[in-house]
Amino acid sequence: MALLTADLPLIDGHCHAITVAPLDDAAFELWCTEANEPPAPGTSYLDSRVGLALRRWCAPVLDLPAHAPVEEYLRRRRRLGPDEVATRLLRAANLSALLVDTGPVAGGLVDRHVLGTLAEAPTHAVVRLELLAEQVALGTDAARFAAAFAVALDEAVPGAVATKSIAAYRHGLDLDPARPEPHEVSAAAARWLRDGGRLTDPVLLRHLLWSAVDAGLPIQLHTGFGDRDAALARADPALLQPFCEATLPYGVPLVLLHCYPYHRQAGWLAQVYPHVHADLGLTVPHLGARATAVLGEFLELAPFGKLLYSSDAYGLPELYLIAAAQLRHSLGLVLAEAVDDGAASAADARRIAEQIGAGNAARVYRLG
Amino acid sequence: MALLTADLPLIDGHCHAITVAPLDDAAFELWCTEANEPPAPGTSYLDSRVGLALRRWCAPVLDLPAHAPVEEYLRRRRRLGPDEVATRLLRAANLSALLVDTGPVAGGLVDRHVLGTLAEAPTHAVVRLELLAEQVALGTDAARFAAAFAVALDEAVPGAVATKSIAAYRHGLDLDPARPEPHEVSAAAARWLRDGGRLTDPVLLRHLLWSAVDAGLPIQLHTGFGDRDAALARADPALLQPFCEATLPYGVPLVLLHCYPYHRQAGWLAQVYPHVHADLGLTVPHLGARATAVLGEFLELAPFGKLLYSSDAYGLPELYLIAAAQLRHSLGLVLAEAVDDGAASAADARRIAEQIGAGNAARVYRLG
Amino acid sequence: MALLTADLPLIDGHCHAITVAPLDDAAFELWCTEANEPPAPGTSYLDSRVGLALRRWCAPVLDLPAHAPVEEYLRRRRRLGPDEVATRLLRAANLSALLVDTGPVAGGLVDRHVLGTLAEAPTHAVVRLELLAEQVALGTDAARFAAAFAVALDEAVPGAVATKSIAAYRHGLDLDPARPEPHEVSAAAARWLRDGGRLTDPVLLRHLLWSAVDAGLPIQLHTGFGDRDAALARADPALLQPFCEATLPYGVPLVLLHCYPYHRQAGWLAQVYPHVHADLGLTVPHLGARATAVLGEFLELAPFGKLLYSSDAYGLPELYLIAAAQLRHSLGLVLAEAVDDGAASAADARRIAEQIGAGNAARVYRLG
Repeated sequence: MALLTADLPLIDGHCHAITVAPLDDAAFELWCTEANEPPAPGTSYLDSRVGLALRRWCAPVLDLPAHAPVEEYLRRRRRLGPDEVATRLLRAANLSALLVDTGPVAGGLVDRHVLGTLAEAPTHAVVRLELLAEQVALGTDAARFAAAFAVALDEAVPGAVATKSIAAYRHGLDLDPARPEPHEVSAAAARWLRDGGRLTDPVLLRHLLWSAVDAGLPIQLHTGFGDRDAALARADPALLQPFCEATLPYGVPLVLLHCYPYHRQAGWLAQVYPHVHADLGLTVPHLGARATAVLGEFLELAPFGKLLYSSDAYGLPELYLIAAAQLRHSLGLVLAEAVDDGAASAADARRIAEQIGAGNAARVYRLG
Repeated sequence: MALLTADLPLIDGHCHAITVAPLDDAAFELWCTEANEPPAPGTSYLDSRVGLALRRWCAPVLDLPAHAPVEEYLRRRRRLGPDEVATRLLRAANLSALLVDTGPVAGGLVDRHVLGTLAEAPTHAVVRLELLAEQVALGTDAARFAAAFAVALDEAVPGAVATKSIAAYRHGLDLDPARPEPHEVSAAAARWLRDGGRLTDPVLLRHLLWSAVDAGLPIQLHTGFGDRDAALARADPALLQPFCEATLPYGVPLVLLHCYPYHRQAGWLAQVYPHVHADLGLTVPHLGARATAVLGEFLELAPFGKLLYSSDAYGLPELYLIAAAQLRHSLGLVLAEAVDDGAASAADARRIAEQIGAGNAARVYRLG
Repeated sequence: MALLTADLPLIDGHCHAITVAPLDDAAFELWCTEANEPPAPGTSYLDSRVGLALRRWCAPVLDLPAHAPVEEYLRRRRRLGPDEVATRLLRAANLSALLVDTGPVAGGLVDRHVLGTLAEAPTHAVVRLELLAEQVALGTDAARFAAAFAVALDEAVPGAVATKSIAAYRHGLDLDPARPEPHEVSAAAARWLRDGGRLTDPVLLRHLLWSAVDAGLPIQLHTGFGDRDAALARADPALLQPFCEATLPYGVPLVLLHCYPYHRQAGWLAQVYPHVHADLGLTVPHLGARATAVLGEFLELAPFGKLLYSSDAYGLPELYLIAAAQLRHSLGLVLAEAVDDGAASAADARRIAEQIGAGNAARVYRLG
């Protein structure tokens, strides 16, 4: 089976910009983790599954033996320089297309087009709803917020293949599923514009989600783990069930990102709601070789046409490659186990792998 | 170990009526899933673990090679006709007894006795509490509801081996564990009889549960996944802990059905509450070959005397066979792994399999 | 890999006193489970993963073949006598050090020093916060409670390496994370001292936790499963996230005990909060051979420097040995799988094992 998936076509259905700035060792280490504080004394974020996966999948691309020590890897990385490293790693990921979250492009991050050139693959934009609303808020008032946001979203949609919500970070997924009334939206906008800060108001978050439903593009929703900004217990995708129910008649695809450690709940939602899908991003790279076990769990209740590959890579080109290489390896193992057990034919296994790797994304995001 | 469990005696501790009506392909596909909407464009509910299991376990019984395409299977199925298909599949399941939920027997479904004849096995009735209450409600008023329900339950109990609650569907398992007072019951009944509709009032659901405790038969409780009618997050069996605590002095067995993806929580309840048991139904057939992994998880905290086989098959005779064949296969693998690891002797493994397959059910339901 | 971990140095980071009183069979069985009621008719708590592990790991130490029947094991145990049994089993556990919870030492339990002599290993004290408060309460009034508790904790700290909270048992982990005000503490103390009973008041439980933060020793917190005294759903360590957030600036290590079945949530906390760690105690012995699967899950998001071995053994010397032998065996299997898969080098595997077995505990608890 390793042969069956070694060259599996992959569409990276959710990823972010990378940095091509020189990084010191501490900064590199922080990009490899969901933490944002220095590691505990005596520990390293790279002494972890993601660190092992880095040394396994990336070291050979930089001409080092697999499992070379982290220090040696970082030395080699500096010698080659960020552009060479990014080029090598992204091409080794061998991606057919990238869907890039248009989130904040801070210092040293390259934009989607540079990323596409480095990866030698077409890219598509994913519109981040909360960011768009925050940009709109700078130039409007409460009474005009909803209209201005609608205009901005209308303008963004033709150039994009999906929208994305991080309501899980800003409030939690335990949202009232109902579409808010216009007067509720303007009252909430008035409070927000008066008080400032990030968009965390649940009425406004719901308004963004329902605007995205109207826009008609597939909606990617952060669920499950991420950085410590989100309350994990409130990011359980099962909490989204009322929203899944409310949006069922509209048919707009919902793509649950990450999901772990609630991926079995996500798999159930993906079975019983035709418009709900589950995405493997973040989980695959951060779990490294344990992605094999967790992929097995993703492939339980979810129909195979509902699972989508992505990396959720951010910042480091390494994360693109780790995710892609690990997915090809782990999915190969999961499906080989099914074939060996007599549970599936080799032809079925290959077909399932192709769907998860790229076929489902091409269909759901209408990549043509 | 495959040999050890290939002919494992199985009591199907929770199942439903089947349909012997001719089914078109779309209807067949919907019977194979917990969804009740047509599949998303470009996907099929049979491109899934249950679909793979269908092609593996059922195709050979209809004279096709394992893994024959679904279309071929459906063609063959139509050619043989529903009666021949049901007879072959149910006999291939090779069941020692069936406990049949006396839930709604809608169009085309055959009753328990026909099912038993087809399966060549004795059947026993499981009284569905909410359905019984809804039937009672048609002929009574609020003041007499409790008494009328008590009479109906008294009449049903001698012909049954268990009662069953779907409070998880109607309200959620986050119920007040206390037995409601008579005046609360009659007030709730008055509201229900006035407003009509399904029984969803938590006071009445609790009254039914406590009536079942008084009746003394084991109580089967839906927990975990099912169709989208239930809020998954409110079907976590851990939410039943207060009810387990309240009913401990009565000793009436509680059998937690399905449990997935909260089966580890159910396993803990089955360890610390002597009267609590966990049932594998719905989980085994819907997970197909992944039942092996999940059975391993069921066999963690729960004492082996507390785990019970069932299929929760409904509608299709295929689901009876998938569940039975998969359980025999997967339990064999789980126990073979334990033997190979040195964790259990082969004699222990066989004894554990026999308990889970039939021994525990015979004891808990007093099948004699 | 078995060879790699067969002699792995282990620090038992959380354990309890043992009994050396003669035990009848029923009492022995109850010590092997988290249940506190007689088993259901026809079942045994030893017909379980812990029972299989007992027969595998302990029987040979008492000169019986592995997998000898429980009855034979108990007979042999009685013949040898409690002191000989305890000596043999504890020495076979081959521990480098023991961190002993100074909880209630009831009838027949031996204290920490006897335990250390039997195990031929140094011991260290873990101060149980709620017990200390209950002892303080006997000799003070509400106005002086906080000061008296502070004095008692100050006195206990120099002789201890950690404090421990069972707030999960007494209230649940859904605690307000804020440090309570002095007047709130004295009002809560007044209510408690007036009403008596165990310390369950959330204000006082929070006061104890914040006092422990001030004391500066690592804080062990019960999370996940245990006996039925705790509400499982309220022991999810994800509920502790606000407390993790609030205590981050203080740097005092938090060690989440047990965690199962929420160990993946604990692993995420251990990744994103530098001061948070996850401990394997209770889970490893009670899951027996399934510890292999669950260890794999612990080794997902948590950096390897954040996972700590313990047994949480209590009462029976058998539990010390089951935990130690199973950890050495299962961790060996998990890491061998990583090596076989190409995910880690053998040197990495050994280093990770040594960290989890003893290195991390030595660093976190400053055992020198």
